[in-house]
Amino acid sequence: MIRVGVFGATGYTGLEVIRRLRHHTAVELTFATSETYAGQNLSRAYPVGWDVPLVPSADAPLDAVDAVFCCLPHAASMPSVIRAREAGARVIDLSADFRLRDAATYQRWYGVTHAAPHLLEDAVYGIPEINRNAVRQTDILANPGCYPTSVILGLYPLLKTNLLAENTPIIADSKSGVSGAGRKPSLKTHFVEVNENLSPYNIGRAHRHLAEMEQAVERWGHTSAPVIFSPHLVPISRGMLSTIYVSLNQNITEEAVLSLYGSVFAASPMVRILPAGELASFAHTRRTDTAVISVTVVRPRQLIVCASIDNLGKGAAGQAVQNFNVMFGLDETESLYF
Amino acid sequence: MIRVGVFGATGYTGLEVIRRLRHHTAVELTFATSETYAGQNLSRAYPVGWDVPLVPSADAPLDAVDAVFCCLPHAASMPSVIRAREAGARVIDLSADFRLRDAATYQRWYGVTHAAPHLLEDAVYGIPEINRNAVRQTDILANPGCYPTSVILGLYPLLKTNLLAENTPIIADSKSGVSGAGRKPSLKTHFVEVNENLSPYNIGRAHRHLAEMEQAVERWGHTSAPVIFSPHLVPISRGMLSTIYVSLNQNITEEAVLSLYGSVFAASPMVRILPAGELASFAHTRRTDTAVISVTVVRPRQLIVCASIDNLGKGAAGQAVQNFNVMFGLDETESLYF
Amino acid sequence: MIRVGVFGATGYTGLEVIRRLRHHTAVELTFATSETYAGQNLSRAYPVGWDVPLVPSADAPLDAVDAVFCCLPHAASMPSVIRAREAGARVIDLSADFRLRDAATYQRWYGVTHAAPHLLEDAVYGIPEINRNAVRQTDILANPGCYPTSVILGLYPLLKTNLLAENTPIIADSKSGVSGAGRKPSLKTHFVEVNENLSPYNIGRAHRHLAEMEQAVERWGHTSAPVIFSPHLVPISRGMLSTIYVSLNQNITEEAVLSLYGSVFAASPMVRILPAGELASFAHTRRTDTAVISVTVVRPRQLIVCASIDNLGKGAAGQAVQNFNVMFGLDETESLYF
Amino acid sequence: MIRVGVFGATGYTGLEVIRRLRHHTAVELTFATSETYAGQNLSRAYPVGWDVPLVPSADAPLDAVDAVFCCLPHAASMPSVIRAREAGARVIDLSADFRLRDAATYQRWYGVTHAAPHLLEDAVYGIPEINRNAVRQTDILANPGCYPTSVILGLYPLLKTNLLAENTPIIADSKSGVSGAGRKPSLKTHFVEVNENLSPYNIGRAHRHLAEMEQAVERWGHTSAPVIFSPHLVPISRGMLSTIYVSLNQNITEEAVLSLYGSVFAASPMVRILPAGELASFAHTRRTDTAVISVTVVRPRQLIVCASIDNLGKGAAGQAVQNFNVMFGLDETESLYF
Repeated sequence: MIRVGVFGATGYTGLEVIRRLRHHTAVELTFATSETYAGQNLSRAYPVGWDVPLVPSADAPLDAVDAVFCCLPHAASMPSVIRAREAGARVIDLSADFRLRDAATYQRWYGVTHAAPHLLEDAVYGIPEINRNAVRQTDILANPGCYPTSVILGLYPLLKTNLLAENTPIIADSKSGVSGAGRKPSLKTHFVEVNENLSPYNIGRAHRHLAEMEQAVERWGHTSAPVIFSPHLVPISRGMLSTIYVSLNQNITEEAVLSLYGSVFAASPMVRILPAGELASFAHTRRTDTAVISVTVVRPRQLIVCASIDNLGKGAAGQAVQNFNVMFGLDETESLYF
Repeated sequence: MIRVGVFGATGYTGLEVIRRLRHHTAVELTFATSETYAGQNLSRAYPVGWDVPLVPSADAPLDAVDAVFCCLPHAASMPSVIRAREAGARVIDLSADFRLRDAATYQRWYGVTHAAPHLLEDAVYGIPEINRNAVRQTDILANPGCYPTSVILGLYPLLKTNLLAENTPIIADSKSGVSGAGRKPSLKTHFVEVNENLSPYNIGRAHRHLAEMEQAVERWGHTSAPVIFSPHLVPISRGMLSTIYVSLNQNITEEAVLSLYGSVFAASPMVRILPAGELASFAHTRRTDTAVISVTVVRPRQLIVCASIDNLGKGAAGQAVQNFNVMFGLDETESLYF
Repeated sequence: MIRVGVFGATGYTGLEVIRRLRHHTAVELTFATSETYAGQNLSRAYPVGWDVPLVPSADAPLDAVDAVFCCLPHAASMPSVIRAREAGARVIDLSADFRLRDAATYQRWYGVTHAAPHLLEDAVYGIPEINRNAVRQTDILANPGCYPTSVILGLYPLLKTNLLAENTPIIADSKSGVSGAGRKPSLKTHFVEVNENLSPYNIGRAHRHLAEMEQAVERWGHTSAPVIFSPHLVPISRGMLSTIYVSLNQNITEEAVLSLYGSVFAASPMVRILPAGELASFAHTRRTDTAVISVTVVRPRQLIVCASIDNLGKGAAGQAVQNFNVMFGLDETESLYF
Repeated sequence: MIRVGVFGATGYTGLEVIRRLRHHTAVELTFATSETYAGQNLSRAYPVGWDVPLVPSADAPLDAVDAVFCCLPHAASMPSVIRAREAGARVIDLSADFRLRDAATYQRWYGVTHAAPHLLEDAVYGIPEINRNAVRQTDILANPGCYPTSVILGLYPLLKTNLLAENTPIIADSKSGVSGAGRKPSLKTHFVEVNENLSPYNIGRAHRHLAEMEQAVERWGHTSAPVIFSPHLVPISRGMLSTIYVSLNQNITEEAVLSLYGSVFAASPMVRILPAGELASFAHTRRTDTAVISVTVVRPRQLIVCASIDNLGKGAAGQAVQNFNVMFGLDETESLYF
């Protein structure tokens, strides 16, 4: 059995990581941390029947684990990652702290000096469908953000085959459920403010996840198309859809592009490409760990890609456990939701 | 024109009071207070296009108004009520501070010593459909709570005609929209916690509003039937339904009981009794200032009364403005929503 | 492997039965029927990635199965049950057709003559927590309705120990998610009519599920207390809470009553009793197959029981699979959701 | 008093037209039609307290009215419009039947031969903020669709001043509440299918409203930029947001573009331009008849315009009554919601 610890067990992503680990056949959950609920049980924080004792992170027995999931906010995550690595545990970090290869870029977007720039080189930004081999070998897995996961998976076949028109912006109009904003109460997540509302925020080139997206476009597309990214908050607990508008450098039929997407993801059980005529929606991935993608040709050289994930599933905890499975040579889909 | 001030303009009830006063033909809005948004405009707090400047309550020009609405939380309301009365303004207080006639009872339920017990005698707990004359003459109007408004209106014809069985509990199973919990962020009002959830809280004899209900039963029913009151939070922004189970001391036909309700509220434009076969729902009163009531005979001597109000309408701001209209001899329905 | 067929695979309960059977370690899904989608795949009816071919019910290979789940509406279910029994398959019927022991009572409530009164004697109305042995032995399992499941489980410890006051009505105020109304479009399930609304319907003694409840009270409580049952539709997809008001024939402390509930359900992994101070809500059972119950003592001899289930889980498909597990001597919790 | 009739009173737009006319100071509601509820009262169709008798459209006293609102679906509207014009009544048609100037284009998009091509020349596609004078003089007002209203108002200042880059597509990613789909029950509007879901449909160049948008771009922009239009259904009853991505033919500062928008709509009380830094959301226009617009400069020559309307307000009934007010020389804002 692989001994696993979870830092930040009482946030939404922490809860979902534990939900999957509980019925993971190769995992023994060794510890789960919470500062707020330290000394209590997970069922104090959520209406679940699970008996998971919570310890303060200072008491986490790092020597007794093979791997840790860090489910803490950015900046708060770094110290735990450093400690875990020093203790020799492999790390899956769900925060933004190890996603950007460049410490200066990190500082610019997050307003925090990076505490462990030396670890950035070891860290692998991991989407198994794209860089499974790198994931397998790393000891620090930077689990992608939810928005970037949807956008990068939606673009990847076009990036890989150099189909994007140069110097033309990629426009990603994304819609996210509210759990993406975390569990900390604020006016922005107050039921009465969110319900019956839909609101754009940080649109254009202002949201932190833009950096991840452009890094991925550059790395896997060998190009530097600017991304215009507009997130919208929708009155739904879980789910995400990115509607992505792209210009191509050549004509392509719907049949050909669907065939391309199908073949690129053929060996990837967690990604499903829809047949022509069906569009990806939140419902396609709700409470699953899959990504579902549709592609529509709207004009010559112009596509709309719709990429749907559950923001807590493939967008966070599901992909984290998938990465963990790959890192430890297990069945990639073990304990994931379909 | 009647000059009016509003304390606590940026809570949900404050906003709704101002919404009504803005198109009130006899009112001039003289001031509106907010500590958080002092010096700014109401459109900073809400996505409205109204230009309502906000001042700190210490700067409220009490000499320049004829009446004030206090839309502050309990305990916070008392100092403003006292100041307003000293300045000679008539007060409509939407908090719980002047609803209970007995200062000791207030202290027991609210855990606060009452700061102005001498004003309790002047205060009128006002539901125009029940005690219009007393409302007309008072200078301190204690606007009822939302739950009590629905339950008391639903029971009133039975209380007035002594139809309730003695010593048999009145059971009110109430469902409320989330705006009743106020705008202050908390885990209880977090979208993800509330959405797709329905949760009872403080059921039985534990909720503060029980005291108002039993006070009203005693006063208007001249009896002391115990009330069992179970509030439930539902994932809806606005609205309230109380499903009330009562035992009678005699048989009554559905026709007779509907006729009774119809005649008791015949001169009350803000209350509507549904015909046999139609049940009151949230939709009947959503975004209105009316109460809608249905009565169902289920067994001999056993009724179910369903009483629907909008918790911010007839349950708060609507009834407050209705009370104001009565106090100033205006058309009772002026500026109210139907 | 147990070979299983599903009649009515494209309703909400059919989908949920298949969801559980798909990862059931002892089951082979042999056929799934649909008239509307016959010849197509389940993924035409729902945005799922499952390849489940659908056949018209006339083509169902009844000789090739050991058991069938009937997920059809009442009246429509009887012919399939009869055919399945004739072919020797054991039946789990999720409709109302075999729940009432008396054909005349069935006809009175459902307006349909019973097509197989001879099978009524064989049928077992099965709630494993209550009559596990009878479930084990039957060949026709009548799976209870969602409302009755919540109410009967909530009352059972009181019934079993004769604690209910005689001749005093049991009042069940129930709230249900919309999936309980089925997938057939109607104005009652139109999003705009349901959203931001909460509406009582068939309250008092008018809803068909009353018959099941009173049958259970009589059978397991050896008493005939009248039930007053008020269902309410709430703007939630899945879930159910029954707030049950009961009078007892003796005083009992909260500690004692919680201990009673705990011991009655001690060997029942799908029922959870909450500790004092915590109230059952929709969130406790959302997307699980468990029932979660809280008990509150409100006055001497007066309790409020809150019983929460997912209407499609323990209220339908989850309990059906649980019953199936018991019938076939499997682990009772196999493939169920916690 | 202007005597007014309403065809199709029991659809969502019909209800909202009547809601406004009820408190319109210059209007007498002469008739309201419904086939389904003919002979009954509007309160049979909706939980309102209004006594509005409903007649079959064949009985509508067209001689007794000065104007009619046609709130019928496309194709169904034409006969009533023709009859009303023959009787001399001025018409505000909320259907699509008179929006496209070209009968062949109408037939292509709607699959119906136009029954009154001779009236198309008289018809004015009216958005008061754009062509107030033409609205004033017409006898057949074609009230724009909800999506086109949001997109055209959002683009209009750019069209008017020739700021759009040539041959570059305008991308409108729109999100709509469910009431836009009408009240007729279908699987697409079933609560359980819509709730917790968000789904794109008819994206790219497939939705009928595209024709209106391109007609407006050509007419008011004197250009033929292709529109890419992607509607999304969101689990909200009312509201609409179009996030519009446009390329300009020159650089412009945020200050300059906001100033442009402000001046173009300066005399238009129903349109509000947000200050820099605030983005339009559903909440800005919910249950109002206004349009609220924000403009964000994201890169040189690249803007995002967010245009919010209530789909039943400025997107249908509100704009219809506004057009009516203009046609009859009344205060443009009479009886409208802010």
